Amino acid sequence: MKNPIHENRINRILEEMKKRGLKQLLVSDPKSIGYLTDVWNEPYERMFALLLKADGGHKLFLNRLFNVPDTGIQEEWYSDSDDSVELVAQSVDPQSAIGIDKEWTARFLIPLMEKCPTMKIVLGSDCVDDVRACKDEEEKKLMRKASRINDETVEKAASFVKAGMTEKEVAAYINRTYREAGSNGPSFTTIVSFGANAADPHHEPDDTVLKKGDCVLIDMGCVWKRYCSDMTRTYFCGKADPEYASIHDLVRSANEKAESMIKPGVKLSSIDAAARDLITAAGYGENFNHRLGHFIGLTDHEKGDVGASSDLVAKEGMIFSIEPGVYLPGRFGVRVEDLILVTSTGCEVLNQADKHWKIVG
Amino acid sequence: MKNPIHENRINRILEEMKKRGLKQLLVSDPKSIGYLTDVWNEPYERMFALLLKADGGHKLFLNRLFNVPDTGIQEEWYSDSDDSVELVAQSVDPQSAIGIDKEWTARFLIPLMEKCPTMKIVLGSDCVDDVRACKDEEEKKLMRKASRINDETVEKAASFVKAGMTEKEVAAYINRTYREAGSNGPSFTTIVSFGANAADPHHEPDDTVLKKGDCVLIDMGCVWKRYCSDMTRTYFCGKADPEYASIHDLVRSANEKAESMIKPGVKLSSIDAAARDLITAAGYGENFNHRLGHFIGLTDHEKGDVGASSDLVAKEGMIFSIEPGVYLPGRFGVRVEDLILVTSTGCEVLNQADKHWKIVG
Repeated sequence: MKNPIHENRINRILEEMKKRGLKQLLVSDPKSIGYLTDVWNEPYERMFALLLKADGGHKLFLNRLFNVPDTGIQEEWYSDSDDSVELVAQSVDPQSAIGIDKEWTARFLIPLMEKCPTMKIVLGSDCVDDVRACKDEEEKKLMRKASRINDETVEKAASFVKAGMTEKEVAAYINRTYREAGSNGPSFTTIVSFGANAADPHHEPDDTVLKKGDCVLIDMGCVWKRYCSDMTRTYFCGKADPEYASIHDLVRSANEKAESMIKPGVKLSSIDAAARDLITAAGYGENFNHRLGHFIGLTDHEKGDVGASSDLVAKEGMIFSIEPGVYLPGRFGVRVEDLILVTSTGCEVLNQADKHWKIVG
Repeated sequence: MKNPIHENRINRILEEMKKRGLKQLLVSDPKSIGYLTDVWNEPYERMFALLLKADGGHKLFLNRLFNVPDTGIQEEWYSDSDDSVELVAQSVDPQSAIGIDKEWTARFLIPLMEKCPTMKIVLGSDCVDDVRACKDEEEKKLMRKASRINDETVEKAASFVKAGMTEKEVAAYINRTYREAGSNGPSFTTIVSFGANAADPHHEPDDTVLKKGDCVLIDMGCVWKRYCSDMTRTYFCGKADPEYASIHDLVRSANEKAESMIKPGVKLSSIDAAARDLITAAGYGENFNHRLGHFIGLTDHEKGDVGASSDLVAKEGMIFSIEPGVYLPGRFGVRVEDLILVTSTGCEVLNQADKHWKIVG
């Protein structure tokens, strides 16, 4: 490897392979490959894969149309008319188990199994994902910057939004503001939900017009030098229904309770439980129908849940979301979401935009 | 099924399964599921799958966070804390081969194989892709409209571009114009390449400034009601180098030659060969280093090549690109691309924007 950052990352992966008794691992998530080699391609339907071997002798499989890398890793080039999976089959040890990236598609995996029928196939991308979950210093800087832009943009959006606007108009404003800030734009489809639309956590902005008394839920993130931010704030237009305002306070308290518990060694399931218990005690447990959070970095949703069935434990360098919500179908929804970075003693909340409810519009 | 359009599409798939001796097929490409059920979800890392059975008894597997469908197909709901693959394992026939979607990821496929170790696993998405390749009347209308917006937008871009602008500025103008036309924006990252940058077919817009004498290659497409357009035009800024202009004429002739041959029954490999032979005869064969075209519809690149190794034959209703190019590394590149629809007697070229070279800027 030419770059010590990438060499260090690959070495961390090799240690994870060793722990799991894996001598070969096929990495195919293009972002994982970029993370490990600084070769960034969007392969679409073409094969792009990095074979890591416990004894070295790594290989990078590339279509001739991809970027020309200069990594020090052995390159195996193919053309559109070649059988790309055959190249992999010739490079693996068919007598040894192989770890396969969870993102690898059946398009390649089924032909590889047909070519190497005796090779034991196991899911292996945890080796990469567990390393990606703990950000190095370079990554922390980029994640902080992506969230800084997000904070500034949501404050601008809160000033911009007015009764009479549509969800699409507000989403377009946010996306434009991201680009003006020099980012690469949204990290996922910007969610702007007015009133009852906010009761659907995955609502997409439509032509619904904002009216007085509606809640305004904005779930948004941008990409800064490949790294993603993600935050949710919920406001009220013109006036706040007292019941909805008190639910907002409850959800924010659940968010703050969860954040206050985070430090190395704490089970992520216990953080989910603390937030959920608070909401359940107030009578809204069934209205909080998703996990508390997810990991994030090069993609907006990375492997790792902050949820009841997670067996993960907080480790220094992890970055994940804390996003409790309460949804009243047909009426109202609120979610309050930050990204947090686990530090040696607690956590750094990457979002600084005010998370209390306030009147906008 | 409640909607005859979708019922008809599923019946076409069941016929394809029968031809291939498949009694069960798992469809997981979210766009294929939308195409067959009108249930549209972006599942990210969650499982979303449609199990089609030769004897009926289809099932749709859904996370409780997804859109609530109303399709008439039996729904199998799961929550984030459930083992979603177990639901599939309980619904398949482990004694019968199963066709798997080429897009299904190892994240689900490997656990399914572990749960059903005797079940024969084969790639099965051709059953869907071969049906999706031939557009029905509803789809043809949407594809025509997406290309109409593309035509209008490239003409506007040709008037907009001026020496001194950056590639990014021109790409941003195109993306904005798409949205103003009411589309959902670009169907892929808009490519704007000036001068030597055009020699890289996958160049992404950067801060390169346009200067007199540069070629201006624009490869662009938008999404109209989920359907994609895709077109390339190449212009010259201020003046045209005579050598480059003659290469442009050659590439356009190759595009026109290919389009003139298209009708039902013609091998797609022979269309590729005709365009390639023309370019090779002029001495630029090695500078045309990609396939002639690709299929397109709900995604910008769908299964199916127009290339040397394609064994496909043109059928009425197919829509694909015809995009010969010549690339001189470090100096210049040109590509001329249209989408075409195979008709009963020939083809309808979906793009009407002038494809001759002209002076802009």
